[in-house]
Amino acid sequence: MPEFRQNLATKEWVVLATERGKRPSDFTKERPPRVIPPPFKDDCPFCPGHEDKTPSPMYIFPEQGDWQVRVVPNRFAALQPNLATTRSSVGRFLSAKGFGIAEVVIESPKHNLTIATMDIKELGNVLLAYRARLREISKNDKINLITIFRNHGPLAGTSLEHPHSQIIATPIVPPHVRYPMEQAVLHFDKHGTCVYCDMVREEIDQQERVIAQTDYFVAFCPYAARSPFECRIYPKRHTASYSSIDGEEVMELAALLRELLARIDIGLNNPDYNYVLRSSPVGDEDTRHLHWYMVIIPKITIPAGFEIGSGIYINTVSPEDSARFLREVEIK
Amino acid sequence: MPEFRQNLATKEWVVLATERGKRPSDFTKERPPRVIPPPFKDDCPFCPGHEDKTPSPMYIFPEQGDWQVRVVPNRFAALQPNLATTRSSVGRFLSAKGFGIAEVVIESPKHNLTIATMDIKELGNVLLAYRARLREISKNDKINLITIFRNHGPLAGTSLEHPHSQIIATPIVPPHVRYPMEQAVLHFDKHGTCVYCDMVREEIDQQERVIAQTDYFVAFCPYAARSPFECRIYPKRHTASYSSIDGEEVMELAALLRELLARIDIGLNNPDYNYVLRSSPVGDEDTRHLHWYMVIIPKITIPAGFEIGSGIYINTVSPEDSARFLREVEIK
Repeated sequence: MPEFRQNLATKEWVVLATERGKRPSDFTKERPPRVIPPPFKDDCPFCPGHEDKTPSPMYIFPEQGDWQVRVVPNRFAALQPNLATTRSSVGRFLSAKGFGIAEVVIESPKHNLTIATMDIKELGNVLLAYRARLREISKNDKINLITIFRNHGPLAGTSLEHPHSQIIATPIVPPHVRYPMEQAVLHFDKHGTCVYCDMVREEIDQQERVIAQTDYFVAFCPYAARSPFECRIYPKRHTASYSSIDGEEVMELAALLRELLARIDIGLNNPDYNYVLRSSPVGDEDTRHLHWYMVIIPKITIPAGFEIGSGIYINTVSPEDSARFLREVEIK
Repeated sequence: MPEFRQNLATKEWVVLATERGKRPSDFTKERPPRVIPPPFKDDCPFCPGHEDKTPSPMYIFPEQGDWQVRVVPNRFAALQPNLATTRSSVGRFLSAKGFGIAEVVIESPKHNLTIATMDIKELGNVLLAYRARLREISKNDKINLITIFRNHGPLAGTSLEHPHSQIIATPIVPPHVRYPMEQAVLHFDKHGTCVYCDMVREEIDQQERVIAQTDYFVAFCPYAARSPFECRIYPKRHTASYSSIDGEEVMELAALLRELLARIDIGLNNPDYNYVLRSSPVGDEDTRHLHWYMVIIPKITIPAGFEIGSGIYINTVSPEDSARFLREVEIK
């Protein structure tokens, strides 16, 4: 029997319609065989030895010796750092110059790694680079929102093979981000608690969608997952901004994120995916009603006219089945 | 220079970043040559002679003789019409049974037509079927939102070739629909006008994004278009619900919609696309602050991590260029 489920935080609804759907294992079959690229490519601008193909880095780790992580300005940036932020009117319409910051996090010198195959220490260095850039960009008082994300594979919007993620910082905090914040305030004022803390507590209580847990973090397929195998990682302690993560937490997060992506990579045969690190807007780092988290979306289904029109996503694999499937994947 | 633009109605922002983008004509090149299917297929459940492969129609036109349009229950419906609508709690989470109505509009007996190649009278019959079903389903007092949409091609979420569109009616009006309604109320209370009427007026005043106009309708690429060649059709007179469209307007809309889809089909070499007919929720048909419209989204770009995270879409072709390109396509 199909079911509507509401996202506790955003109040958006999904439809679980599993009868029409496939079993989780059906999603692994139709992909072409995996081709592992070489560890170094002559024509890759992100490979070591080609540092002159990218603008000067704003972050490099380690500072001496061979680099492990480099963060550089995006040469194909959609936004530019040298513009004003004032709004202007075009008749009844509102416009602003495209001020913003766009950076690329080159996650490893090795061309053929990805999060699922990095070692935990390497991934820890990537997560530390996210924190460093989040902290640094937050000092720019024209920036209000910093989005950190990773596109893996062409269906997720990248054709670049070398492992990398991206940071885009904007002066604008759009309704897409504001609306869940408003819902979080309503929840806080009604219940006196962070809605995301409550969601985490409920997922841990119900257990059946939990994939893995550590001291500081929990990974689950959310109750109102919009698509098959959607996963999220939340810190268990209340924190609105990723900028406050400490070194011990970073290493735990690295281990958990790597495990999750290895389960997805092996279980679903290297699907394309996006992940997003959602952290509070700049200035709201200490607020009691927001909570940072990561969402991982394997690109397995296509939102169509109904999703575009209504915003109600039809998910053909229940998050309970998705979580069970991912838990049972054998990883090294 | 990149630019932020705000959607007057929803207040969502987009980034126009055309420097990194391609010219409109670049989008036509990479597609495989078009294969026109035969007018009838033995294994197609929607072709004439196979009426027993679909459940009994709830609408058929004409009522006597060979059918031109048939509307049937969706055999693979995500929602079911025989359930209750009560919400129930699962711990802190909210759930409802998957009550809803899902129908397929078989647009023509001919397997190898599509909107772009139908004649205007045939398309008029499809648009009349939409109106009839919208009116009829609205009588069901458990239904609050009716979404009419068309998925064309695999990237738009369908592999079914026979020309068809879909109707999904739900008891739930989600935030995705409610938020723009709230914005429309704020605008109405501030300005005393329908925000969509104002948007239409502004687009007509500015002209450069208008593709075509008739007495009753205007088609344009909107000022804050989220993707290349996004098009919209609005009625010029204020009307919240498509259910009030009259026969003369239907025929004008058919001519305009066909022209628009022919321009897209020829100009962009038959891209996959979604269209959605957005009409007021049930019961709000006469409200002064809503306005029905159609949005057509060619599936040419892929929303990636930044769009998922921020809701800010990066559009690499300005709507001015998209509109100019579509206006200049030579159609028969």
